[in-house]
Amino acid sequence: MADITAPPSETQLKSLLRALDDLDLPALTALLRPLSAIQVVDVLERLDVHERAVLYRILPKDRALEVFEILPPSLQGDLVGALQDDAVAALFADMDPDDRVELLDELPATVAGRLMHGLPPDERELTAVVLGYPQRSIGRRMSPEFVSVRPTMTTAEALTRVSAGLDDAETVYMLPVVDDERVLIGVVSLRRLLTAVPGTTIVEVMRPPHWARATEDAETAARRCADLRVLALPIVDNETRLVGILTVDDALQILETAESEDQARIAGTEPLRRPYLTAPVVSLVRSRVVWLLVLAIGATLTVQVLEVFEATLSEVVTLALFVPLLIGTGGNTGNQAATTVTRALALGDVGPRDLGRVLLRELRVGLSLGLLLGGLAFAVTSLVYDRSIGTVIGLTLVSLCTMAATVGGAMPLIARAIRVDPAVFSNPFISTFVDATGLLIYFTIARAVLGI
Amino acid sequence: MADITAPPSETQLKSLLRALDDLDLPALTALLRPLSAIQVVDVLERLDVHERAVLYRILPKDRALEVFEILPPSLQGDLVGALQDDAVAALFADMDPDDRVELLDELPATVAGRLMHGLPPDERELTAVVLGYPQRSIGRRMSPEFVSVRPTMTTAEALTRVSAGLDDAETVYMLPVVDDERVLIGVVSLRRLLTAVPGTTIVEVMRPPHWARATEDAETAARRCADLRVLALPIVDNETRLVGILTVDDALQILETAESEDQARIAGTEPLRRPYLTAPVVSLVRSRVVWLLVLAIGATLTVQVLEVFEATLSEVVTLALFVPLLIGTGGNTGNQAATTVTRALALGDVGPRDLGRVLLRELRVGLSLGLLLGGLAFAVTSLVYDRSIGTVIGLTLVSLCTMAATVGGAMPLIARAIRVDPAVFSNPFISTFVDATGLLIYFTIARAVLGI
Repeated sequence: MADITAPPSETQLKSLLRALDDLDLPALTALLRPLSAIQVVDVLERLDVHERAVLYRILPKDRALEVFEILPPSLQGDLVGALQDDAVAALFADMDPDDRVELLDELPATVAGRLMHGLPPDERELTAVVLGYPQRSIGRRMSPEFVSVRPTMTTAEALTRVSAGLDDAETVYMLPVVDDERVLIGVVSLRRLLTAVPGTTIVEVMRPPHWARATEDAETAARRCADLRVLALPIVDNETRLVGILTVDDALQILETAESEDQARIAGTEPLRRPYLTAPVVSLVRSRVVWLLVLAIGATLTVQVLEVFEATLSEVVTLALFVPLLIGTGGNTGNQAATTVTRALALGDVGPRDLGRVLLRELRVGLSLGLLLGGLAFAVTSLVYDRSIGTVIGLTLVSLCTMAATVGGAMPLIARAIRVDPAVFSNPFISTFVDATGLLIYFTIARAVLGI
Repeated sequence: MADITAPPSETQLKSLLRALDDLDLPALTALLRPLSAIQVVDVLERLDVHERAVLYRILPKDRALEVFEILPPSLQGDLVGALQDDAVAALFADMDPDDRVELLDELPATVAGRLMHGLPPDERELTAVVLGYPQRSIGRRMSPEFVSVRPTMTTAEALTRVSAGLDDAETVYMLPVVDDERVLIGVVSLRRLLTAVPGTTIVEVMRPPHWARATEDAETAARRCADLRVLALPIVDNETRLVGILTVDDALQILETAESEDQARIAGTEPLRRPYLTAPVVSLVRSRVVWLLVLAIGATLTVQVLEVFEATLSEVVTLALFVPLLIGTGGNTGNQAATTVTRALALGDVGPRDLGRVLLRELRVGLSLGLLLGGLAFAVTSLVYDRSIGTVIGLTLVSLCTMAATVGGAMPLIARAIRVDPAVFSNPFISTFVDATGLLIYFTIARAVLGI
């Protein structure tokens, strides 16, 4: 049996592209048949919008739905634009409400409106429930289709209700228990129901629930679902009434997107909304140019600092030789601290109230690093140049590392405290700040030691 | 009902710490009672090793197991060291084989051996199966406890087998279907079993399986489980025989650890093996100093490049003013490209064979960014300084951005092709490389334009 999860081979890909160019439909159908859904997605991601629509139309109906469901929302949006309305309406009606909302966010308002209108009334209502919550809230990403049970039911009655809900509910493996006011009072796993002695009531087998509020940040709720290692997390409103359910696979997708955004922002780019190879060059430029410009404008601060010390520089040109090395090391130290603390924040290991402890730790770490690097640099530079240059470089590294680690460690916590995304606020800004401050420290120490 | 998932309040934390200092056990018990397991973990992460053992011993037995299971493996290791042997043996026997293996990796060999020896024979065998696979392989992280069904069984027979396996199996919600040679031939969900018409056989309701090989990289397999949005992925040996199962919650944990490692390496630090606040300062220093030193040594390249151009520098000191700005912008451009491509690699959107397409895209992106920034810099610098300096800065930015984006985009793919972790190989190295090359470009252009 062939491995159906490996990416399609180079040969398969080339034959497919050739058949696409020739619009050789029988060949295309034959080439697509042995591919699994995930392999078809892999192929689709390598095509342009037009080719993608052609290839997609060739897929048999059930294959098409399977492929559509695991396609990134941005490519789903492209396809919806390229396909005929009736095909889209059928696809749209078959999707889960939470996936549907994600796709709606990708589409132009008129297309979204037309699609919503074409839904059966009950599906339209469920989608509207999800759309009612603010963007980025877990209410937007939860599924409003769930099976809940009552504490007074017997396990057999609960199993009957599960059977009735099997077709629609997002999951039946974790069942929320609610009282007469729909308030969440417990959870019970399908596994527990199956092992229960006949006649047991739900109240005897349920466990106290974990939950998230529908208005809560989607990433926070998804992280909790992951940390708790549960298959699903009930979502409640402000009165703790059950309104939906977050399944672990949706939690996973949320966390993945959040990681991508964090990583992009740490490097000073806007996150791409689509797979790399399908993003037009102009979107790649757009995702980077603003940050690059902002950072370059920030970096003019270093030009100004250096101008102030231009006289010192022209007197001892040797000082200029170490500028890239020193600011590079300062930047690296700051980035290390910022990344470590940003990650600890994302994992919930530290919070803004730990600012004092983090500052103290990073001060000690930075000082240790500075003493190690500074000592080494003093020894080497004293040998290669002279002792006074060695002293300047050594002392600069000690102060620079201490300053950079402390600032780098504090920044993400300050960002969180003032409710800015720590990833947006951190690494590139820290580099720029550390560059300018570092030069100031360097030339101040140089003037003092060299007596100029 | 109080929110049991929010972190404990500052007041609760302070009272707990005070009671711990006073060793006031009744007060501690009372303070711990209202906390959920996840809140207790939150408290434990803020304590030192000794306090942690004291607090843990106070927990009632079932609470203790619940807390232990969601504790990070490094802290589990600490606790095992601090608790008495019989308490540890009981805990250890209650864990799942895959979690047990993770804990064993954390412990000194003698302690690990003693614990393995204390296990009941069947549990010991299961753990040994998992331990037989190479480190970082999915075989190490899979669960060897699963329920499988045969294609010839009726759905009712399969359900009976599920009921029998309910207590031990890691999951019963996704069932692998195997033939007489234990070869994986399909999967069927519990949900599908429950909806089947009586008398249906498994072969009629099973779907073709996705799977991972036990020797495959754990992160690759976990990513596949996440991408496919399945609750569990069957794990097979080289003959496609079923040997275990990867559940989505374990996949999630693997991906989370991998993300942490990638983010750490992108910033040039070694990943921390424990939560930030519990890591001793000396481990923080150790996780950063090697990289910092390697990068600083790499950066001496910039000192050497500048030495070559020292005469040019002392003739036109103004050139020194722009060094931090230029290398900063080059580094940012390179990092943006490297991070975008590293992420695309991690998500499977590109592979080493896409090198040509990525190079071409990054060349175009870099050139566009260079023309935008260079044009702007030319205009501003010509006004503030003079047209010849403006020309130097403008031309440098165009070449620098093009070079940096192309190198930055190619690096992660080259790293993957030569089987090095792209995250280890990328951002800080790119910065160092771009710094040195950028200075070379800058001074070459300056000499040509200024005629010196």
